[in-house]
Amino acid sequence: MSNIKVIKIGGNVVDNPEALERFVVDFANTPGHKILVHGGGVEATRLSARLNIETRMIEGRRVTDADTLEVVTMVYAGLINKRIVAKLQNAGCNAIGLTGADAHIVTATRRKPNPIDYGFVGDIHDGAVDGQTLVHLCKSGIVPVVCAIMYDGEGGLLNCNADSVATAVALGVSKLATTDLVFCFDKKGVLRDVDDPTSTIPTITPANYPDLRSGNIIFKGMIPKIDNALRAIAEGLRSVRICHSDDLNNDCGTTIHNI
Amino acid sequence: MSNIKVIKIGGNVVDNPEALERFVVDFANTPGHKILVHGGGVEATRLSARLNIETRMIEGRRVTDADTLEVVTMVYAGLINKRIVAKLQNAGCNAIGLTGADAHIVTATRRKPNPIDYGFVGDIHDGAVDGQTLVHLCKSGIVPVVCAIMYDGEGGLLNCNADSVATAVALGVSKLATTDLVFCFDKKGVLRDVDDPTSTIPTITPANYPDLRSGNIIFKGMIPKIDNALRAIAEGLRSVRICHSDDLNNDCGTTIHNI
Repeated sequence: MSNIKVIKIGGNVVDNPEALERFVVDFANTPGHKILVHGGGVEATRLSARLNIETRMIEGRRVTDADTLEVVTMVYAGLINKRIVAKLQNAGCNAIGLTGADAHIVTATRRKPNPIDYGFVGDIHDGAVDGQTLVHLCKSGIVPVVCAIMYDGEGGLLNCNADSVATAVALGVSKLATTDLVFCFDKKGVLRDVDDPTSTIPTITPANYPDLRSGNIIFKGMIPKIDNALRAIAEGLRSVRICHSDDLNNDCGTTIHNI
Repeated sequence: MSNIKVIKIGGNVVDNPEALERFVVDFANTPGHKILVHGGGVEATRLSARLNIETRMIEGRRVTDADTLEVVTMVYAGLINKRIVAKLQNAGCNAIGLTGADAHIVTATRRKPNPIDYGFVGDIHDGAVDGQTLVHLCKSGIVPVVCAIMYDGEGGLLNCNADSVATAVALGVSKLATTDLVFCFDKKGVLRDVDDPTSTIPTITPANYPDLRSGNIIFKGMIPKIDNALRAIAEGLRSVRICHSDDLNNDCGTTIHNI
């Protein structure tokens, strides 16, 4: 195996039946070895509300008590993961849905309760991804579809951030294959002008990033994303691309790489 | 690979945390290649009630409308399946949780709406199990843990009977390995006297079954179970054992075989 693509989708695809149908066909048609990582979307919040379980978000992260862990396990690992797997099978892609516990592909570490107690929330440290098993599945013609529920190493599960899972999975397999990571979201890429969807910055590298930051062209929420992408490239990924979920197989969006 | 065991557990294990803890350790310690199939238990009914979704059972089978299919997918494929997988990982067993859609291991056929419309309920016909993928996973050191949500062959899911799934999976792998099927339940086996738990019938064969039936020693709900077991043996299984979930690795219970 020479190349592998790790592709992450979030709420704009998962929550939108038409967008999901389009994405599933595109993903099935993506050539070569590939792994899909998906986030949760609004269905966990909706199910929590129906069950009278309070949803608490702090800085965009879901506080996950024992009841909420059951909800996200049901929604992410059950409903959404299996819905995507069944649709991919129908599109001719031999998908297998996984949490971190399945074939122990990813072990997370429960986040410390200070300064904020997020409950059953985990972070993924170096070496916590079983890249060999993921690559073995790919080589067997099976396409892993990974949700953001990870194994805690002690018989339980943890709720994790799907962007972090995608990055960790990509780094895990990058020891064994040339790896490209793609974040699919609801914009065309990193934009020079947030009000102009045609202003995508095609390439970000360590060389042009300082100017983009100092010129306030990249700011706010995009800074940690680009920082993380550059760090992941420094640690072994070939590239990180940020693009619209409808552009998975088109040569557009913003590509972050080293050269 | 020469031998494989397919082991099925039902509600008496899934619904009872202490029984599940004991079973998980026993299953992890079962030597050789193995596949676990699990039923649902009462949690789907409980979640349906909390969501004000009516539970309708006809002849012990759950009528599965679209809302109920979401509930059983969340509970069986999400909550219960991943709970078992995480506990097995902790017991040193490299489990992977699967529906029929995952790696297209089992395709079911939606049951006709006449005479009873069960909704999204499926039956598994000959040749609908991908035994090769299951055996390949086993050979890779991965232990499949299969819930009773199957693929419909058209991008959707179907709710199936877990006993039937276990039998179909066992027959599917029996083309490639000598296969023994074990049904773990809440009794010591098939009893001569339902009020005497020590009266287990150790062996049922095509030779002694007619006498057991005509003598009314095997009757009611046990007849279709034994009929199915004998049919599965005629079709290629080496044995079917019915035993208490605490006796998985003990040489007891009722074994049905050909000779």
